[in-house]
Amino acid sequence: MFKKPFFNRVALIGAGLIGSSLARVIKKKNLSDKIVICARRDETLSTVKKLGLADTVTKDLEFAVAQADLVVLCTPVGAYESLARKMSPFLKTGTIVSDVGSVKHSVISMVKPYLTDGVHFVPGHPIAGTENSGPESGFDTLFENRWVILTPQPGTDQNAINKVEELWRCAGAKTEIMDSKHHDRVLAITSHVPHLIAYTIVGTATDLEDRLKAEVVKFAASGFRDFTRIASSDPVMWRDIFLHNKNAVLEMLGRLTEDISTLQRYVRDSDSDKMEELFSRTREIRRSVIEAGQHIIPTPEKD
Amino acid sequence: MFKKPFFNRVALIGAGLIGSSLARVIKKKNLSDKIVICARRDETLSTVKKLGLADTVTKDLEFAVAQADLVVLCTPVGAYESLARKMSPFLKTGTIVSDVGSVKHSVISMVKPYLTDGVHFVPGHPIAGTENSGPESGFDTLFENRWVILTPQPGTDQNAINKVEELWRCAGAKTEIMDSKHHDRVLAITSHVPHLIAYTIVGTATDLEDRLKAEVVKFAASGFRDFTRIASSDPVMWRDIFLHNKNAVLEMLGRLTEDISTLQRYVRDSDSDKMEELFSRTREIRRSVIEAGQHIIPTPEKD
Repeated sequence: MFKKPFFNRVALIGAGLIGSSLARVIKKKNLSDKIVICARRDETLSTVKKLGLADTVTKDLEFAVAQADLVVLCTPVGAYESLARKMSPFLKTGTIVSDVGSVKHSVISMVKPYLTDGVHFVPGHPIAGTENSGPESGFDTLFENRWVILTPQPGTDQNAINKVEELWRCAGAKTEIMDSKHHDRVLAITSHVPHLIAYTIVGTATDLEDRLKAEVVKFAASGFRDFTRIASSDPVMWRDIFLHNKNAVLEMLGRLTEDISTLQRYVRDSDSDKMEELFSRTREIRRSVIEAGQHIIPTPEKD
Repeated sequence: MFKKPFFNRVALIGAGLIGSSLARVIKKKNLSDKIVICARRDETLSTVKKLGLADTVTKDLEFAVAQADLVVLCTPVGAYESLARKMSPFLKTGTIVSDVGSVKHSVISMVKPYLTDGVHFVPGHPIAGTENSGPESGFDTLFENRWVILTPQPGTDQNAINKVEELWRCAGAKTEIMDSKHHDRVLAITSHVPHLIAYTIVGTATDLEDRLKAEVVKFAASGFRDFTRIASSDPVMWRDIFLHNKNAVLEMLGRLTEDISTLQRYVRDSDSDKMEELFSRTREIRRSVIEAGQHIIPTPEKD
């Protein structure tokens, strides 16, 4: 059995799909005496209030973090540097700062320089999500049976790391400690490049002549559907991911475009053996994903 | 209310996901006095028998089609030409020949030349499916609320077209008549190229160094998962699709690779405005797909 962490005051900065799901978990499992949600937009704050996700909602970053023993950044990563700079003077000694961003190396370089020695930084990335965004889209089972990758730098307070791990385990997740640069390469191929390609395919279809475009939607069940789902993820979040994981994305995209050219040649040459060999090999990978239990698409209905 | 078609004897050649689902529909809705399933492999035939999908199972193509008033080709399209050549002498006048293949123009050129004047050819393509294959994977609600595109040539017997349309409507599908070349262009962008890309992405990941490869599976929930699902579709079926829709696939793939280069440049140049604009535009398309009711992934559980 894992230990249940306890916080006096958790401050979540941002309340999208991930932030609001985390708030739901903390509330449901009673992991903090107080939950404060800080967001910039009135609409978000009023939705958070209506849904009862926090004890306190505020636009005031200083007020949100001042007494917190855990601060979790849940905004698109592009906002991190400014948030770290602004909140840093108000963090009390011993506060744990974590996040849920999909890139990790540049997150460390954006946030770490602003934090004083007594503040513990444990960057995190829950490998979970849906294509929906906003506080209404969250649910408390989102992290069940998912991995959360933590990328603390060497020398980070072990107690702080443990508490963040315990928090995620209470959400039903499994945790793994990883080097931030390695995280960014793994995610480039499993997540960032696939999203980039899905955005491109859907974009290509929107550039077609009108009649064809209407039919693309009508006959989406043939495969296109899945790409539209992926390509409907939050635009700002994804813009920031590509801005902040540029090198790994470009490396993996380079490999991919080479492989596309190869398959393109197979098609042009009608090389049926090579095609069948590749398509059989990829089928094996699906089996591994199913064996690892990572094939299920989480939905709120599965609560 | 649409008319219920009635056949004395339906012969399904092949009993994969689509063929076996169609058999289930015909049986459930009582659309034929007799269902004959013809397949090449013993394993398929014994599964079909065990599942009770047909009144008669046989390896003998001549026997299967001889008395049929409807013959539906449900094998990978690469087998069509040989099937058409072999079965043609045994088809009685008035028989309707249809199919469920994902390409239509080359299907017409493979099958039509073998059919005599009294035989009516109504090529069809149900825009429905899952990543699973084989007779066990079929279910009778697979076609509900899906489109079936029919590509009969000008001059085809209207009665025959009507009967095939009625068959699919009984399966819960909507039908649309389309030119075969146009069908192949629409499907190239909505289905064939997306599958080709999914196969490539999963293939690229299998070429990674071992440690990274294991992690790709472990952290598949980040987006890669969806591509592994698509890339686990039947290898032979997909090989045949690319072999038989080469031109449209290469045309659409050409457009796509241009667009990938454009997005690659946005990433390299950190062009945040252009990225956000594209990602917002693709989100709109998802809304259209949802409005068209084509976003739902069919599962047997939804029966």
